[in-house]
Amino acid sequence: MGFELGANRYGKADIHLATVTRRDDRHDFFERLLDVRLEGDFETVYLEGDNASVLPTDTMRASAYALAFDRPDEELERFGLRYSEYLLEASPAATRAEVWISERPWDRVVTDGVPHPHTFTRGAHRWTGHVLRTREDVRVTSGLDELYLLKTTGSAFGGFLRDHYTVLPETEDRIMATKVEARWTYTVADVDFSKERETCRDAIVRAFAHHDESRSVQHTLWHMGKAVLEAAPNVDEVAFSLPNLHHVVADLAHGGIQNDGIVFVVTDKPSGQIEGTVRRSEAAPTA
Amino acid sequence: MGFELGANRYGKADIHLATVTRRDDRHDFFERLLDVRLEGDFETVYLEGDNASVLPTDTMRASAYALAFDRPDEELERFGLRYSEYLLEASPAATRAEVWISERPWDRVVTDGVPHPHTFTRGAHRWTGHVLRTREDVRVTSGLDELYLLKTTGSAFGGFLRDHYTVLPETEDRIMATKVEARWTYTVADVDFSKERETCRDAIVRAFAHHDESRSVQHTLWHMGKAVLEAAPNVDEVAFSLPNLHHVVADLAHGGIQNDGIVFVVTDKPSGQIEGTVRRSEAAPTA
Amino acid sequence: MGFELGANRYGKADIHLATVTRRDDRHDFFERLLDVRLEGDFETVYLEGDNASVLPTDTMRASAYALAFDRPDEELERFGLRYSEYLLEASPAATRAEVWISERPWDRVVTDGVPHPHTFTRGAHRWTGHVLRTREDVRVTSGLDELYLLKTTGSAFGGFLRDHYTVLPETEDRIMATKVEARWTYTVADVDFSKERETCRDAIVRAFAHHDESRSVQHTLWHMGKAVLEAAPNVDEVAFSLPNLHHVVADLAHGGIQNDGIVFVVTDKPSGQIEGTVRRSEAAPTA
Amino acid sequence: MGFELGANRYGKADIHLATVTRRDDRHDFFERLLDVRLEGDFETVYLEGDNASVLPTDTMRASAYALAFDRPDEELERFGLRYSEYLLEASPAATRAEVWISERPWDRVVTDGVPHPHTFTRGAHRWTGHVLRTREDVRVTSGLDELYLLKTTGSAFGGFLRDHYTVLPETEDRIMATKVEARWTYTVADVDFSKERETCRDAIVRAFAHHDESRSVQHTLWHMGKAVLEAAPNVDEVAFSLPNLHHVVADLAHGGIQNDGIVFVVTDKPSGQIEGTVRRSEAAPTA
Repeated sequence: MGFELGANRYGKADIHLATVTRRDDRHDFFERLLDVRLEGDFETVYLEGDNASVLPTDTMRASAYALAFDRPDEELERFGLRYSEYLLEASPAATRAEVWISERPWDRVVTDGVPHPHTFTRGAHRWTGHVLRTREDVRVTSGLDELYLLKTTGSAFGGFLRDHYTVLPETEDRIMATKVEARWTYTVADVDFSKERETCRDAIVRAFAHHDESRSVQHTLWHMGKAVLEAAPNVDEVAFSLPNLHHVVADLAHGGIQNDGIVFVVTDKPSGQIEGTVRRSEAAPTA
Repeated sequence: MGFELGANRYGKADIHLATVTRRDDRHDFFERLLDVRLEGDFETVYLEGDNASVLPTDTMRASAYALAFDRPDEELERFGLRYSEYLLEASPAATRAEVWISERPWDRVVTDGVPHPHTFTRGAHRWTGHVLRTREDVRVTSGLDELYLLKTTGSAFGGFLRDHYTVLPETEDRIMATKVEARWTYTVADVDFSKERETCRDAIVRAFAHHDESRSVQHTLWHMGKAVLEAAPNVDEVAFSLPNLHHVVADLAHGGIQNDGIVFVVTDKPSGQIEGTVRRSEAAPTA
Repeated sequence: MGFELGANRYGKADIHLATVTRRDDRHDFFERLLDVRLEGDFETVYLEGDNASVLPTDTMRASAYALAFDRPDEELERFGLRYSEYLLEASPAATRAEVWISERPWDRVVTDGVPHPHTFTRGAHRWTGHVLRTREDVRVTSGLDELYLLKTTGSAFGGFLRDHYTVLPETEDRIMATKVEARWTYTVADVDFSKERETCRDAIVRAFAHHDESRSVQHTLWHMGKAVLEAAPNVDEVAFSLPNLHHVVADLAHGGIQNDGIVFVVTDKPSGQIEGTVRRSEAAPTA
Repeated sequence: MGFELGANRYGKADIHLATVTRRDDRHDFFERLLDVRLEGDFETVYLEGDNASVLPTDTMRASAYALAFDRPDEELERFGLRYSEYLLEASPAATRAEVWISERPWDRVVTDGVPHPHTFTRGAHRWTGHVLRTREDVRVTSGLDELYLLKTTGSAFGGFLRDHYTVLPETEDRIMATKVEARWTYTVADVDFSKERETCRDAIVRAFAHHDESRSVQHTLWHMGKAVLEAAPNVDEVAFSLPNLHHVVADLAHGGIQNDGIVFVVTDKPSGQIEGTVRRSEAAPTA
């Protein structure tokens, strides 16, 4: 009996680049972090140390900067499409290229009501994109992460299963807080990605804010998912990863204080973790 | 010859709390992280293991929650004043109490132009405060950190000292980026701290944006410092800690590309680090 | 057209626990971090806010501590088996339970050559385990991560594919450094997991050290994988995730210095990233 | 009234370098992270944007690599002495240079009992050094950090001050855990720094392990401090920063379990924080 190579891939992590577009009246600024992987027929690289088929990860890095030069103000998804195309062209042995992009938006600074032409401040969440390209096909996902949302009421958690180890009290009114990570896919290949992202983000925030009968993070996830699909006809599926960032009512009884939802212990660990996908269905409309 | 105890202090780090104020038409939400230290006559604690004078750090933690309950919407500086007062009262052996507070502002969510009564999203920088209290005196500092600012032009760096190891080219036009940490002190004890903080933050951002003849981070620091003192008459000194977050023009010459300020390598390490204080002077006005 | 729930799961992240076993002559100490997820028929939780089928994540947390009490010195894999069994029993709606465990080994302190009965210092890498249990089946994986390995010679990288963007010089002698993450699966369910882990770790370190004809990280990965399978007959597959932590020869030419492999710039970002699996094959032995 | 420049300094943070010494029979490997600051007469830099006196932080970076080339196996303290000397020579306006160095030791890999000539694995704590040089004087400090120590018994905490907010129970037997940061100064300028560091580290570990009548972290700190001064005659003062990494006995009463020190909740935040200095005294010997 011998040994063989199973699943494998390689690439570059954390390629950090920025681009500036310089117009007469204003500049734009983009900052992105790239991760890239190639899969394919690379067995001899591993077994024989033969690098003839290896596009060095340093070339992946260098090419990202060169491609960004060509179109410095391109949407992150379009950059991912172009970059993955280059990777498959440059690497004949590869059958599949995968690119993850995250962009921290730098908002234009406004002073005394006037947008400044070339000064920016870093925003509070990140946009993300993912491109998976084979020789036959390509799929694009857009998303966001590090979007912190919190509501001080309109969230309950009760009626749950109880067993020997259950100590959690039921509550009709709690703080619900999460750091939203969302990714959505499109039914068509060519959309205005920036506009779609804004639409989806706004739908998520609005649904989180207005869904005041939340029975659980899962329940809110469903409402946010529906809201995205209702607001964005080009989107056919949205996946969420939602940590439940617990805010526990501080026990002040020893000091004779009945703390009815005024002061909370913010706990970093552990956190609940809710992950779910909402998609369009051929079946009759659901609630 | 023997041994003796030198400088010493003790306390609690990273007390993480949140408060909610519940009005009829809207809630407010505050999230704060506290650090606290006591100094004083604690020699027997160390040398003899006698804890009679030790206020446990767990009591420091518990008391922070109880004090926050009393005034959940208090400004962070006023909380620090009250908390440090409690600490000295509770610890007769202590001669000095020090409290650091950092507050991540959660901005009220606006949907369709309407501020939401109880939903918030986490902001992009942090407010900070520091209270140093002795039995005779107290000093308050306000500040901010994690304020990322970047400008794509209006910044130069040249005319510097050169030696054997200098390879850096001079530049008349570069990206300047920093993560501002600022702390300022007041000439009077009783001010509207929240308003002062907004004023100082706006002055910093405005000065960074409009100072387009920047010859160095130091040069910009001076302009930001003057701007704070001009905008905030109650402030008599402001200290900055400014990393120079380098954005290096990507070398694309090998690809035949002359990259004239379009694509940049964002480097995390190393970074320049500029720290300076600007204060009022009795002398004649400086430029 | 309506909407429907797609893939979903929920659980608790970062349950941090420690156990002590107290024998007459010595104590043992274990520190573990747990992540757990359940999948199953939870549609009504999302669509209707009906929590009747939800085992709260807080119960997952509480039960972990209770189960650890029963067998405080159990191997991490056996704890994962028992914990996943509890989770499926406690949650009738669940069809699948998944548990990730990571354990930072605390090494017994040795003073003057004598192992101390109850004092420990934190080790430099982590052990990991993963249990995936359905109603019919269970799979166990063991592993390690944060094992930093570096060699100052015996590693080359050349003969690679070149394109328009390739600037990397070939090298016959470079520093190779990585942070090993490895996971392996067993052919049998009941092994001495602790011993297997030691065996696999030693095989990885030995192969990394002695493979001095390395042509790439991929090449070394293959040798480490073979070494694991040769040393551990109960293991049938091992997967590696190997960042290439670049150490770049510092360019000191401007100072008239020819730096032939003495001083290196350690770069944190970007890094290469090599991921591959080595498994047993029915085919004839490979080299 | 005008404005003036107060305290200021500048430099480079996180210069990351590695060196290799290549002997016939074995290599040595060192990895270091440097922070450096200059203070002096730099007023015109800030006020006038005149960089004539500014040694660029990029030159500080480049010179660190060049100086490391000259003596790749130098002790970190000696490197700091030489580097700070260069900085003051290169910067006539500077009156003070400060260098912080941290070194993650890479331990030589041992396979089958044999030390490997050129393979290393990253150790679990870090060595540190600090050099403060003026035109007249220089001071050297050595130290360590990230040394995690834990004992499962031999530590108590009781007899403390109680007030309105005190809920902590007294305990005669608890887990004590800390991440030691220590810094010590020498009475003489020229010592075998590496040996001194080993001596001080061993004294700290031994005192932590053998001091089984610990009444508090402060009490243990004192014993560790004395141990350093007793073991290292060239050291005249040692300062510790000791977080109290709380391990709280898990409350399992709801499950009918009396958890007498078997299972613990490891909490990351908040932590106690104890900082103290032990030094030699001219007075009569203390206990």
